Amino acid sequence: MITSESFGVNAEGHLTIGGCDSVKLAETFGTPLYVMDENVIRKVCRMYQGSLEKYYQGKGQAVYASKAFSCKEMCRIVAEEGLGLDVVSGGELYTAKAAGFPAERVYFHGNNKTRDEIKFGLEFGVGHFVADNLEELELLQELAAERNQTAKILLRIKPGVDAHTHEFIRTGQIDSKFGFALENGEAKQAVQKALQLPNVQLIGLHCHIGSQIFDVAPFVLAAELLLDFMKEIRDETGTLLKELNLGGGYGIKYVKEDTPVPYDQYMQIVSEAIIKRCEAYQMEIPYVYMEPGRSIVGEAGVTLYEVGSVKTIPNIRTYVSVNGGMTDNPRYALYHAPYTALIANKAAEPADFCATIAGKCCESGDLIQENTMIQKPQAGDILAVLSTGAYNYSMASNYNRNPKPAVVMVRDGEARVIVRRETYEDLIRCDV
Amino acid sequence: MITSESFGVNAEGHLTIGGCDSVKLAETFGTPLYVMDENVIRKVCRMYQGSLEKYYQGKGQAVYASKAFSCKEMCRIVAEEGLGLDVVSGGELYTAKAAGFPAERVYFHGNNKTRDEIKFGLEFGVGHFVADNLEELELLQELAAERNQTAKILLRIKPGVDAHTHEFIRTGQIDSKFGFALENGEAKQAVQKALQLPNVQLIGLHCHIGSQIFDVAPFVLAAELLLDFMKEIRDETGTLLKELNLGGGYGIKYVKEDTPVPYDQYMQIVSEAIIKRCEAYQMEIPYVYMEPGRSIVGEAGVTLYEVGSVKTIPNIRTYVSVNGGMTDNPRYALYHAPYTALIANKAAEPADFCATIAGKCCESGDLIQENTMIQKPQAGDILAVLSTGAYNYSMASNYNRNPKPAVVMVRDGEARVIVRRETYEDLIRCDV
Repeated sequence: MITSESFGVNAEGHLTIGGCDSVKLAETFGTPLYVMDENVIRKVCRMYQGSLEKYYQGKGQAVYASKAFSCKEMCRIVAEEGLGLDVVSGGELYTAKAAGFPAERVYFHGNNKTRDEIKFGLEFGVGHFVADNLEELELLQELAAERNQTAKILLRIKPGVDAHTHEFIRTGQIDSKFGFALENGEAKQAVQKALQLPNVQLIGLHCHIGSQIFDVAPFVLAAELLLDFMKEIRDETGTLLKELNLGGGYGIKYVKEDTPVPYDQYMQIVSEAIIKRCEAYQMEIPYVYMEPGRSIVGEAGVTLYEVGSVKTIPNIRTYVSVNGGMTDNPRYALYHAPYTALIANKAAEPADFCATIAGKCCESGDLIQENTMIQKPQAGDILAVLSTGAYNYSMASNYNRNPKPAVVMVRDGEARVIVRRETYEDLIRCDV
Repeated sequence: MITSESFGVNAEGHLTIGGCDSVKLAETFGTPLYVMDENVIRKVCRMYQGSLEKYYQGKGQAVYASKAFSCKEMCRIVAEEGLGLDVVSGGELYTAKAAGFPAERVYFHGNNKTRDEIKFGLEFGVGHFVADNLEELELLQELAAERNQTAKILLRIKPGVDAHTHEFIRTGQIDSKFGFALENGEAKQAVQKALQLPNVQLIGLHCHIGSQIFDVAPFVLAAELLLDFMKEIRDETGTLLKELNLGGGYGIKYVKEDTPVPYDQYMQIVSEAIIKRCEAYQMEIPYVYMEPGRSIVGEAGVTLYEVGSVKTIPNIRTYVSVNGGMTDNPRYALYHAPYTALIANKAAEPADFCATIAGKCCESGDLIQENTMIQKPQAGDILAVLSTGAYNYSMASNYNRNPKPAVVMVRDGEARVIVRRETYEDLIRCDV
């Protein structure tokens, strides 16, 4: 099992999360259940803010990538911790607004923002748009002009850095739907265009090189390439861009083999590279953004299921079916993502049973994990899957018309519902 | 483009669906939009019912697998056409009930039905449970006894037939989470157990050998293996099982290379094999069920999107971003499923432009199709993806907090909303 300050095993041999007995949580709130530890979330937020203070003298901002897990309560926590909020859709923006998130700290991303979404962003007064393509620049100009506003933007740049992660979630290289490529002149063309638009103010550059990255080198390289480009822009146009957003992608621990770089160490190494480059170019150090999502909520989350059937196929494998599956966690079906699982009511027992954890959907690919070691399971057990705080609730579907689970926030032994469980009535709400 | 009686091109050069101009549908109802042709759905329903009449003298029932597309209006259409309904969850059952679907024609599937779901099925009075595992048999006995009811069941059998389709959706072989294997004695053990349970009545057997199958042979083989097992049960226990459910899995046309077996031809070949086997075994021909899902709704559906940006990466590819994506159609991200796309407002023009159709999610894997030939695209065009009636709306998520599109039913030039579009308010309805 992954050890963490959030987890423990109590006298009954039950897994505890944030001081709460997981088996009691399952009884009280039902299963499947997402559980998130608020202290873990807040601690990571503070660590990022603290590192920006330490290495950039506070001239920086951590921006939570809310696509990892968006709900009103999460927006409130992020607001309290002083972070910015990265939204990628009108729906995430609506959530931020409903939670009272300060508009100027909202950053609007996306490779295909619609006209209505851009209007909504302008009306709400988001701090920056991260502009992805030429059509968007034109839309921003048109819609900002209509409202007599100026849209502050960063340009999303493809630095051409390949972060050596899963093909599906690799976004820095030139063959990507996101942003403007550096090497073929697209990025420069976009800068020239943006500088000509009267209702668009180009503030800086943005890049995002991938997800679940365990290496500092690609981040350093991407920062250096963007600073090189900033220098080029300064030298050719006389415009000094003031902001540099290095995106997210910091890896987390899903299984014990995972070795994420300590975030503070990453911050230090990248900051040293930035400062050195800026000195060499006699350039003021830009205001630096980072956009952690997964690393803020991922390890804070656990999913609890009830085991239904245990089906051993001799000489092949044992299927342990739980009352959730690809509907609440599609990441194994999509990416064969690794996870750590255990029987929460037998957490003190040895994990010596090889199980394939299957969901309840009528689909063979509905698996949570294959051939993973857990405690000996039986019907009625509570099965916990760790590190499900990111991209689980946010990617959940109603496939097979399964309702989405509730999300419970735990903190120092107390638990509260932050997203209520969907009902059957919710499922047919839109049916005519 | 796939030709079908549902599609046409009108004088403006626009794609028509069920007699409606697709571009007008997009204007009227917004995009993304699912459009389904009611005549196509009803015609396939009648074809299945007609084949059962012709080849089994009406001693059979087509059962719509509602996981392919479940909503109240779809349940009503299926009820009107006289088919049964296959549900795999409490949510699908709730939908059937809300639509007034006759309970006795409902068949309750699933590898891990929960206690609450089984209770709900018993209360509603579903026709049959398709029992998947020993724990479920015990639950059925317990809960039926509590209510002084008898649960009629079919046993889900793994006949060990491999239908040569995509790994994710292959379910007939022994290494599957579904059902009882024939070859290792599990199936026989389950029959013996079921026959001993006083509140469970074993009516017959069920199998399902896979999805999107283009070959009749595996269906024939599975039917023969199940009849062999029925004979064995008769000879050993004296019990003659009366019903045989052969599941679904009939392939449909996603792209022009797809060559589905004409359904009537499949029905004929399988019925001949069944009749021959039963004669040889001097066994009464069982009541035959089939469970089409995809083949009833798949080709009836089209998704309409608006094109946002067109991004050509020289010598690599062109990304055409639309205002939907893996949220409304996750099948490319999950299975690399093939689809046919076209520009609906340029349907009469040649499809000579090679495009990668990307969604608007902040994820590189959010693609609908790679390097597919469409008409030359530009921002504002309406892009249509064909054969999206099955496993699109039903698998849709709110990833990136994108609302689910509306579903419009068209028929003879008329269009009506059958599932309304989700609002932003719907997205935060469960947030505390």
